[in-house]
Amino acid sequence: MRVIYNEQMADLASLLGEMAGLAGSAMDRATQALLQADLAAAESVIGEYDRIEDMIADAEERAFALLALQAPVAGDLRQVVSAIQIVQDVNRMVALALHVAKVARRRHPNHALPEAVNGYFAEMGRIAVHMGEGAREVLENRDPERAAQLNEDDEAMDDLHRHLFTLLMDREWKHGVAAAVDVTLLGRYYERFADHAVEIGRRVIFLVTGVLPPDPDSEA
Amino acid sequence: MRVIYNEQMADLASLLGEMAGLAGSAMDRATQALLQADLAAAESVIGEYDRIEDMIADAEERAFALLALQAPVAGDLRQVVSAIQIVQDVNRMVALALHVAKVARRRHPNHALPEAVNGYFAEMGRIAVHMGEGAREVLENRDPERAAQLNEDDEAMDDLHRHLFTLLMDREWKHGVAAAVDVTLLGRYYERFADHAVEIGRRVIFLVTGVLPPDPDSEA
Repeated sequence: MRVIYNEQMADLASLLGEMAGLAGSAMDRATQALLQADLAAAESVIGEYDRIEDMIADAEERAFALLALQAPVAGDLRQVVSAIQIVQDVNRMVALALHVAKVARRRHPNHALPEAVNGYFAEMGRIAVHMGEGAREVLENRDPERAAQLNEDDEAMDDLHRHLFTLLMDREWKHGVAAAVDVTLLGRYYERFADHAVEIGRRVIFLVTGVLPPDPDSEA
Repeated sequence: MRVIYNEQMADLASLLGEMAGLAGSAMDRATQALLQADLAAAESVIGEYDRIEDMIADAEERAFALLALQAPVAGDLRQVVSAIQIVQDVNRMVALALHVAKVARRRHPNHALPEAVNGYFAEMGRIAVHMGEGAREVLENRDPERAAQLNEDDEAMDDLHRHLFTLLMDREWKHGVAAAVDVTLLGRYYERFADHAVEIGRRVIFLVTGVLPPDPDSEA
């Protein structure tokens, strides 16, 4: 049993990692779509969404089958339960990349963003991709130090997000309300994407160390 | 074993239901805080957040203990796995109510909302509370018809959300960019709150019928 469990759990972890990588790649193309008004990039994110959703359903079923057929205990059981929770975080990351791509498509052939904020989104996109990649590595290697690095990326994301709001709230904002609404929602999508990557890191740290790190975005 | 399992699973379901009800109640007070610039209402939501987070951690641990100690199989196992997923939805609902309360507190003693959109938020708040209550009932009674009703509430929420955006995008919007940013985020919080309630309903329907209903907010 244990051998089969180990194999199947390794497969599941690598599937989760692959999906986190795909979420990062989707956010990469969605950001390109946004910055370049690149319709093909937007369509590629939107077009692959169903396939990733199928992978997510597959991962959920595999986790369930692991519980049902291998009846893991103790630390093994904890791993499968974490996998079930992590699937939901990955699922949201993919959905958030999809949201960004859809805004780019909706505004095409126009740019969704006023040029003044392009730099912010280029950087938020870069960080998001890095975090998707980081989540993938953490899921595959279970390296708690790499998991902790996700927090640093998240802080950089939060800083950018705060600056972006300062810009929006400034009386000098000259790009109108419609652009402000788009920028607000888009900023929120990137910030939430980062939160989910951090959450994946926290769950992996918990698995490895037995201690759940404090939530950096603790809401209270 | 089975008797103990049944008892503990019933306890867990009722804890989940209680938390969904608390999420609805938090959104109720958060909406009041928003509409009346009522600081005490905002503080009450913010002040109870940690206690609800403790309940959420407790629910996660109880689900884990059920798996570890009762080793449920088949439909019983499916129930516990669903409970683990539902905890995450309830967790987000509570966090979204907290976000609304914090906006109200941040703008106090001013109103966060321009009067023109008060009616929208009063109605979105009413629907959100109804959905929190619906999620509670569904978790406690596992009534698939009540679960399906959550979809109708969600459609009403989506309609309001769309109208709100039409208003924001209108050239006649006279309340400035800062208010538009607040309205955009707040609208998103209510809409996501509803999505999570729907997700709870879908998972319960899946448990009862074995068929996962299509996602009404399917993102592709």
